[in-house]
Amino acid sequence: MTGAIARPVIPGERYAARLARAGELVGARGADALLVGVGPDMWYLTGYEAMPLERLTMVVVLPGQAPRIVVPRLERPAAEAGLRTPLPMTTWTETEDPFAIVAGWVGSAARRLLVSDRLSAAHLLALQAHLRGATWSVASELLRELRMHKDPDEIALLTLAAHAADRVVAQVAAGRLVGRTEADVAHEVRERLVADGHDEAHFAIVASGPNSASPHHDASDKVIRAGEPIVIDIGGTVGGYGSDITRTVWVTGGDPANGPDAEFRRLYDVLQDAQSEATAAVRPGVACERIDGVARGIIDAAGYGDRFIHRTGHGIGLEGHEEPYLVAGSTEPLAPGMAFSVEPGIYLEGRYGARIEDIVVCGDAGPIVLNEAPRDLLVVDG
Amino acid sequence: MTGAIARPVIPGERYAARLARAGELVGARGADALLVGVGPDMWYLTGYEAMPLERLTMVVVLPGQAPRIVVPRLERPAAEAGLRTPLPMTTWTETEDPFAIVAGWVGSAARRLLVSDRLSAAHLLALQAHLRGATWSVASELLRELRMHKDPDEIALLTLAAHAADRVVAQVAAGRLVGRTEADVAHEVRERLVADGHDEAHFAIVASGPNSASPHHDASDKVIRAGEPIVIDIGGTVGGYGSDITRTVWVTGGDPANGPDAEFRRLYDVLQDAQSEATAAVRPGVACERIDGVARGIIDAAGYGDRFIHRTGHGIGLEGHEEPYLVAGSTEPLAPGMAFSVEPGIYLEGRYGARIEDIVVCGDAGPIVLNEAPRDLLVVDG
Repeated sequence: MTGAIARPVIPGERYAARLARAGELVGARGADALLVGVGPDMWYLTGYEAMPLERLTMVVVLPGQAPRIVVPRLERPAAEAGLRTPLPMTTWTETEDPFAIVAGWVGSAARRLLVSDRLSAAHLLALQAHLRGATWSVASELLRELRMHKDPDEIALLTLAAHAADRVVAQVAAGRLVGRTEADVAHEVRERLVADGHDEAHFAIVASGPNSASPHHDASDKVIRAGEPIVIDIGGTVGGYGSDITRTVWVTGGDPANGPDAEFRRLYDVLQDAQSEATAAVRPGVACERIDGVARGIIDAAGYGDRFIHRTGHGIGLEGHEEPYLVAGSTEPLAPGMAFSVEPGIYLEGRYGARIEDIVVCGDAGPIVLNEAPRDLLVVDG
Repeated sequence: MTGAIARPVIPGERYAARLARAGELVGARGADALLVGVGPDMWYLTGYEAMPLERLTMVVVLPGQAPRIVVPRLERPAAEAGLRTPLPMTTWTETEDPFAIVAGWVGSAARRLLVSDRLSAAHLLALQAHLRGATWSVASELLRELRMHKDPDEIALLTLAAHAADRVVAQVAAGRLVGRTEADVAHEVRERLVADGHDEAHFAIVASGPNSASPHHDASDKVIRAGEPIVIDIGGTVGGYGSDITRTVWVTGGDPANGPDAEFRRLYDVLQDAQSEATAAVRPGVACERIDGVARGIIDAAGYGDRFIHRTGHGIGLEGHEEPYLVAGSTEPLAPGMAFSVEPGIYLEGRYGARIEDIVVCGDAGPIVLNEAPRDLLVVDG
């Protein structure tokens, strides 16, 4: 239980250091500016979780200069309260053009500009209209170097989130399931995620029977029946950092005759082996694609290769999916502090499927598995 | 009470008609393609509320051709279940480039392309790299013509959401407030929004005392005290459609000596007059800026002009803020079926502020006010 652990607060100096490092990288990469809109990059660099609305709020990082921010006038007090490190602030009123302000700072001579990956097309196109001579790239080319490598506080927040999600999985698996709709169980999951320590519930995949073969199934009005599996893939955030756990439950309705069939047991054994071995392969210097390869090799060898229809994992932090991705073709070497999911799945379309997912941190000598919920197939009355 | 009203379901043919109309507009505007990523435009056109993740899902509308969609392979069953009108579907696997698929459909001869406003910069830049000869614009240039004019089903959903929010405001204002933190009250608001009929809670501004002068204040650890106002601005969604209501409460702690002072009463009277008159001015053919002008004129005349630091309102639908905007400079004429907030505010920085907000639909002959909660200053014990 983690209830007694105080939630870490990332200190203001950390944000200042991140901004300073980002500024160094902008210069080192030969870019003229880094333009960060509302979203995880801004949160990471400044601590400010601005409202994701249509008005422009933007942090502008120019090489060799102090970073600054432009905010809507009505959000000035909110920005002053939200920024964890002070920044020179310029406001714009409802009839002004904030993109002109940013373009003025950047200068018409700029040739290479980086924008936060999540900036909206509406904002990017407005910037492009003001700065026509430049080429544009995503900020993650540069910020990935910072955001992939988690600080101890970030890992503590991920751990708190993981343990809260562990508890919710256990609670839901121990409760009544048969006869309820997937949507009803998903609603319970969302409530429990918040009740058990998350600030927000973000998603609740509850996929029963044939729906369990759909990796991103949207919880539906289908009623859960005895004698079928349920893939439960849930997550929320603690201090902005995500949980993301998947467990597969088989509900019998109390009748042992409704237990998993031989193929499902075999499939699950293969899956559990793949998930376990892929996790065990995590250590500094190993390429991301290698972790994917370990899981895929085991599933391939068992004859389920074409039923494992997604990558093995994704990074996690202030975004539910972020760098690094454990996918074929990624030669990115793992390094201490990287945090990511390890989540192979096997899906027999029209019939059933299963997935097991943990959040894993690359430690100095091997994997640190944040989730503690048992990974065996959970056969329950439901 | 609206609890007994069945929730409307937008029929599949409506989505097909919207897509067909979008296709006509693409051709009529001389555009080569409309590219719609995950988000409200996709939901509006197809009924598919795809997960907002980093993998590309995109509806492509080419003039004179049937629209089509590209989805990640692992989301094919989810997309098939989620689309309310069938579309030819192409899937991409984890190691394929989905942007190349879209570019292939569009063709290298394309000169004028429209992308959904909320598409991420990462996706837009990837598309721009594949289609270098084109000029790019936001899809709202075209889709605003559809999305601004709500169908009766959309208005019914907005009404259900508004009434649910009305009830939450009444519940919160009737409960204990003094001695609690803003964040605690905001948490209660979010729970009540879902408990009282919303699918999701989206925001809960609870701004007390000096914080009430910050229009987009983020609910904080400040403790609410007797003798101060609280601006409560809350919203969630019903079937994707938003509520957004603001009421201002003054808490006395049970002691009449802690009631509102003369300036606050005067400020509130001016504000209520401005909100009422701006609402009354709503009718077809009136320019959006005129509604803003009515509210601003009354507040200006009372000497608070420089304390009303935002526009008078924003459209609402599948997005919390969307077209039309009630702002100086917008000559857009109101038309029957347009839905928007009317929400002037007066903010005395460092001291206190107030705002009153309703969702209003432009009817055939005048305003239809969806919110029914009383607009008078709510003076409560708290």
